[in-house]
Amino acid sequence: MIVRLASLLLAVAGTLAAIPAAAQFAKPEDAIHYRQSAMTIQGTHFGRIAAMANGRVPFDAAAVASNAELVATVSKLPWPGFGAGTEGGKAKPEIWKEQAKFKELSDKLQAETEKLLVAAKGGNLDAIKAQVAATGDTCKSCHDAFRNK
Amino acid sequence: MIVRLASLLLAVAGTLAAIPAAAQFAKPEDAIHYRQSAMTIQGTHFGRIAAMANGRVPFDAAAVASNAELVATVSKLPWPGFGAGTEGGKAKPEIWKEQAKFKELSDKLQAETEKLLVAAKGGNLDAIKAQVAATGDTCKSCHDAFRNK
Repeated sequence: MIVRLASLLLAVAGTLAAIPAAAQFAKPEDAIHYRQSAMTIQGTHFGRIAAMANGRVPFDAAAVASNAELVATVSKLPWPGFGAGTEGGKAKPEIWKEQAKFKELSDKLQAETEKLLVAAKGGNLDAIKAQVAATGDTCKSCHDAFRNK
Repeated sequence: MIVRLASLLLAVAGTLAAIPAAAQFAKPEDAIHYRQSAMTIQGTHFGRIAAMANGRVPFDAAAVASNAELVATVSKLPWPGFGAGTEGGKAKPEIWKEQAKFKELSDKLQAETEKLLVAAKGGNLDAIKAQVAATGDTCKSCHDAFRNK
């Protein structure tokens, strides 16, 4: 009985200890797959705005706004997917060694995508272009520091 | 000159013809990768609601609402990723042979996730449970018909 209780307590402790590691993911691979999926969605829709900002695709204010809405929403998602114990994929080990810098850059991205949404809703192409550049720079600075090629 | 013009017209016609095929994706692989990513995001966040509806995770009305918001948004995304010429991945060829049925089921999913969002915002666990079941049935009926195991 005592052994059973001890096992149970250990099991509970194990579960609790695993929470920060896997956050809301059952397995590290799930977290990796999730964060990569969020990046794909984010990159696709940011790319559609960038294509209009760069003149490769005709400017469509409504399309910019709906894509920016999605980018602002999805830019909040990837980060819990980088919990302790989820090293791998394209992520450099530096993410887990430089957590403050990683958080600073991921916070900055979310701030920039919010500004992009404001610019997108404003519908001014020059403002959108400037904010696409600022957002793209933020993507790049984080990828340069924390993503393997 | 005439040959060049003809080539140009053919190239333009080819581009136009390719638009429904690749929709907004440069390559079929991009479309496949995108739709799979959207399904992963959707499945992850629906799973979090289902875990609370099934009692595996303690009920948290705010978490249900924020997950349902995301599921309703992301459930709109995968479908342009199934354009003509994007066969592959886990998608069964039936998708491109039974377009009306595929559209009916994808529309149904979006309607169900909107109902799930309403239930989630209402905060009533029984209503949420019922709508989780209805939404999950819709996922399943489409996967059974159109997704390879």
